[in-house]
Amino acid sequence: MKNVLERVGVSLDQNLLNQFDALIEKQGYVNRSEAVRDLIRARLDQEQTANPTADAVAAILLVYDHHASNLLERLNHLQHDHLLQIITSTHIHLDHHNCLEIIILKGKVSKIQSLANRMTCLKGVKLSRTNIMSTGKELT
Amino acid sequence: MKNVLERVGVSLDQNLLNQFDALIEKQGYVNRSEAVRDLIRARLDQEQTANPTADAVAAILLVYDHHASNLLERLNHLQHDHLLQIITSTHIHLDHHNCLEIIILKGKVSKIQSLANRMTCLKGVKLSRTNIMSTGKELT
Amino acid sequence: MKNVLERVGVSLDQNLLNQFDALIEKQGYVNRSEAVRDLIRARLDQEQTANPTADAVAAILLVYDHHASNLLERLNHLQHDHLLQIITSTHIHLDHHNCLEIIILKGKVSKIQSLANRMTCLKGVKLSRTNIMSTGKELT
Amino acid sequence: MKNVLERVGVSLDQNLLNQFDALIEKQGYVNRSEAVRDLIRARLDQEQTANPTADAVAAILLVYDHHASNLLERLNHLQHDHLLQIITSTHIHLDHHNCLEIIILKGKVSKIQSLANRMTCLKGVKLSRTNIMSTGKELT
Repeated sequence: MKNVLERVGVSLDQNLLNQFDALIEKQGYVNRSEAVRDLIRARLDQEQTANPTADAVAAILLVYDHHASNLLERLNHLQHDHLLQIITSTHIHLDHHNCLEIIILKGKVSKIQSLANRMTCLKGVKLSRTNIMSTGKELT
Repeated sequence: MKNVLERVGVSLDQNLLNQFDALIEKQGYVNRSEAVRDLIRARLDQEQTANPTADAVAAILLVYDHHASNLLERLNHLQHDHLLQIITSTHIHLDHHNCLEIIILKGKVSKIQSLANRMTCLKGVKLSRTNIMSTGKELT
Repeated sequence: MKNVLERVGVSLDQNLLNQFDALIEKQGYVNRSEAVRDLIRARLDQEQTANPTADAVAAILLVYDHHASNLLERLNHLQHDHLLQIITSTHIHLDHHNCLEIIILKGKVSKIQSLANRMTCLKGVKLSRTNIMSTGKELT
Repeated sequence: MKNVLERVGVSLDQNLLNQFDALIEKQGYVNRSEAVRDLIRARLDQEQTANPTADAVAAILLVYDHHASNLLERLNHLQHDHLLQIITSTHIHLDHHNCLEIIILKGKVSKIQSLANRMTCLKGVKLSRTNIMSTGKELT
């Protein structure tokens, strides 16, 4: 897919424009177009991932007690039971008691949420976060 | 303050633009500028209300059991104890047991959050939601 | 519906309990049961309002420029076009330019979201917030 | 630190308890204590990560176009410029155009947010998500 660049005009009150320019300069944007594109991409992403049947990529983060017996086996079983494409599973030692597991996967939004819910319930899992994102293909 | 309208150009890949146009047409926007302005205003609002010392307007919503003894008096006391400008307080009967109280107020973000936290704790209050918004003046 | 009170036991590590007690004391809870009930009610509310076909009560907040021509008429039309039970609509002057409209309504979650989306798009509406809550009946 | 288990009593209306039990059974919890502990841990985590000066662990997720020139170098520079302990940085190919970078780091909440903001601005970065979590130590 070749990317054809278009230039569109947007009307804004000077006051609103000045505030936006001040914000994006503070944040570190090099130009206004990139900042507007990011707002548009974030809005499209929000819309797409609100659809349970859409394809998405996700990161499930779990902080857990690695002394919890059999937790890794049970996490592993859950990953195999759900029809999701697990891409990677990374394991990080946070301290003597706690680990962080980062599971990157692809699949339907609803399947991802259901797997994340099941993982959250496991004894030993203390915190969980689920990030569901558009695959990026659509956001060129 | 007179509003001077400016027209700025934004570069986007055709693919991204097509998706954005499809979304905003579905949502009901009459033109692209209004949709971009809404994204910018929402982003500025998010930034401003993240600042504890900023001035804001807020709506605190409370679903509560109106049989709870003295709840209205205690809510009332809290409103007077905090140095916030209460604008209105509206009371709606939801069903035999439950009421919805909508408290509109102005003040510093941190003060609003602290008042909302205190109200949430009151016995009889079942659910609460706090909406903190820029006053609008800045978002012309 | 008579409320029968039950007492259930919960096991917690002392460390977690101490931190929770410190937090709820700071927040202003009079006892631990009320704080746990609030967590449970918030979790149930989150689950119920995630269901598009569930009945809910909602507050739609709109900050808008009251000089925008015909905005109130268009808001009014939208309220009548959607099969939702509008309970109240309150209008507050924020400053010379801006008003806050608070629309309280009942209906299916999906209908509420669709109405809120349409209102957000209207020219003159600068900011919007939608609060969807369980009706409270279920949260005794 | 030895974990001493405490048993506390919580009073709830039967109606609320029944609904909570139904929800946690559906979600897959093996017992009610674990579900209540998860609610408490999530609440404490929310409180702790709202404090800009608290220590936290974070995952910054970036979907980006790997054809964007020098993006990896610029990401790398940003990681070194901020006084944060980067633990891992994992790179995943999503499709022909897009990659997902997962950066796990430790540091003060405010520093993490500032780094994430800077990364989001980089040309080529299409989507970003920042997850800030308590380190887990406190949530035993």
